[in-house]
Amino acid sequence: MNVLLVYSHPEPRSLNGAMRDFAVERLRQAGHTVQVSDLYAMQWKATLDAADNLDHRAGERFDPSLDSRHAFEHGRQSEDIAAEQRKLLWADAVILQFPLWWFSMPAILKGWVERVYAYGFAYGVGEHSDARWGDRYGEGTLAGKRAMLIVTAGGWQSHYSPRGINGPIDDILFPIQHGILHYPGFDVLPPYVVYRTGRVEAGRFALIRDELGQRLDRLDTTPPIPFRRQNGGDYAIPQLTLRDDLAPGLTGFGVHLAPAPPQQAIESRSLQAVG
Amino acid sequence: MNVLLVYSHPEPRSLNGAMRDFAVERLRQAGHTVQVSDLYAMQWKATLDAADNLDHRAGERFDPSLDSRHAFEHGRQSEDIAAEQRKLLWADAVILQFPLWWFSMPAILKGWVERVYAYGFAYGVGEHSDARWGDRYGEGTLAGKRAMLIVTAGGWQSHYSPRGINGPIDDILFPIQHGILHYPGFDVLPPYVVYRTGRVEAGRFALIRDELGQRLDRLDTTPPIPFRRQNGGDYAIPQLTLRDDLAPGLTGFGVHLAPAPPQQAIESRSLQAVG
Repeated sequence: MNVLLVYSHPEPRSLNGAMRDFAVERLRQAGHTVQVSDLYAMQWKATLDAADNLDHRAGERFDPSLDSRHAFEHGRQSEDIAAEQRKLLWADAVILQFPLWWFSMPAILKGWVERVYAYGFAYGVGEHSDARWGDRYGEGTLAGKRAMLIVTAGGWQSHYSPRGINGPIDDILFPIQHGILHYPGFDVLPPYVVYRTGRVEAGRFALIRDELGQRLDRLDTTPPIPFRRQNGGDYAIPQLTLRDDLAPGLTGFGVHLAPAPPQQAIESRSLQAVG
Repeated sequence: MNVLLVYSHPEPRSLNGAMRDFAVERLRQAGHTVQVSDLYAMQWKATLDAADNLDHRAGERFDPSLDSRHAFEHGRQSEDIAAEQRKLLWADAVILQFPLWWFSMPAILKGWVERVYAYGFAYGVGEHSDARWGDRYGEGTLAGKRAMLIVTAGGWQSHYSPRGINGPIDDILFPIQHGILHYPGFDVLPPYVVYRTGRVEAGRFALIRDELGQRLDRLDTTPPIPFRRQNGGDYAIPQLTLRDDLAPGLTGFGVHLAPAPPQQAIESRSLQAVG
């Protein structure tokens, strides 16, 4: 596979740097081709602004969406943006690796998303009408590709557990995994999260390498998180609320995961097929 | 009151710009003193890096936390960071105003948080031991101050409803309201959110001004979101999980809100007090 690793940590001699180096080597040894976007090393411009549209004229009103649309359609995007889009189109799998800072990705990576995810590339794709709300949440430019987060957190795992004070890690990552990755079409694999990163001695790092290595070895076979598809019939359009008969009475991020089919239903279908 | 408005939109001639101008005028007319940090106009440096610690020497290993701690303790922070910290200390209320980009704040504002929220200022405050996990989540440097989000979103309100495809707006904003604002001590007021911002004609803008104006008029009296305090007895320390007898059997962001006291319990306490 072609694998793009988008990496954002300011210090190569860090746990993140060591994990990045390990990941790249492991993937290459497995026969994958790897590109790394090392955002700090690239001095990636974090701030989306009018300069991202090469046709924008000084003094004109800047509209983040419309300027992005124009620049993307007419090949007038800042070259750093276009280069990252080419990498995304090239990749079969994309890994975002970052330290969790204030319960989200670092600003430099958020700015990568905002600038590279152009109108017409990552949003504003497909028919938008009262009957169809675009190709998104499981469809879109990046459909068929896999994505995965590698995240480090200073806090303890229990702080991010279902009743932990920071909130459950799956919910903290939902706006990224669902809103940033599933949205333009990615199949999103479960994240690899390392906790309590303040002190990682050699023995623990060996364990981390083992775990991470196994996750990377299964990059092309791990079942993705079963986020529902927007246009698969589960949502009313255009209000985009989950159908009343699905996850009835429930609310929150969790309802956007399709449940595993109940064993009984599978069995009865098998019986019907046999019958 | 002293009010700090931290504003991040690239175009003053936008809905956000108009709302910002309205908010500043409304607050001043009500007798408040207002400072605005207009991050785009200030060309705020979004990326946290070694240059933020004036004592950092080229070639030395950079540690985001330890360098921040050193710079804060020794008065060796980049001056733009120190200036924002002074504004936060000056303010009685802080408003973060931004467009929701990819289900979070713009990178430039995230970078404001990452750089201004220094170790010793917004985290790493107070005793850290197995018995006490710092002054945070309701305590800390910014305790006693109020904070509120003003957010614009392109999508429809139903898309952000309890069963909407984007996830409930309260959950999308939890990492900000709880993780960024409640964490260093703020009392967090309910957000003011405007949806479907693609087309806002004059009539609708008049409604928005009315709603926003009323929210600003009640800035000092609106009851905050009842996030639980870390050190108020609701959490086990150091694992920081919610006590089993609180919100029993429930999980997710919602358990970190204290329920309104049941009416019956209040009445029985009153009777006891009378008795």
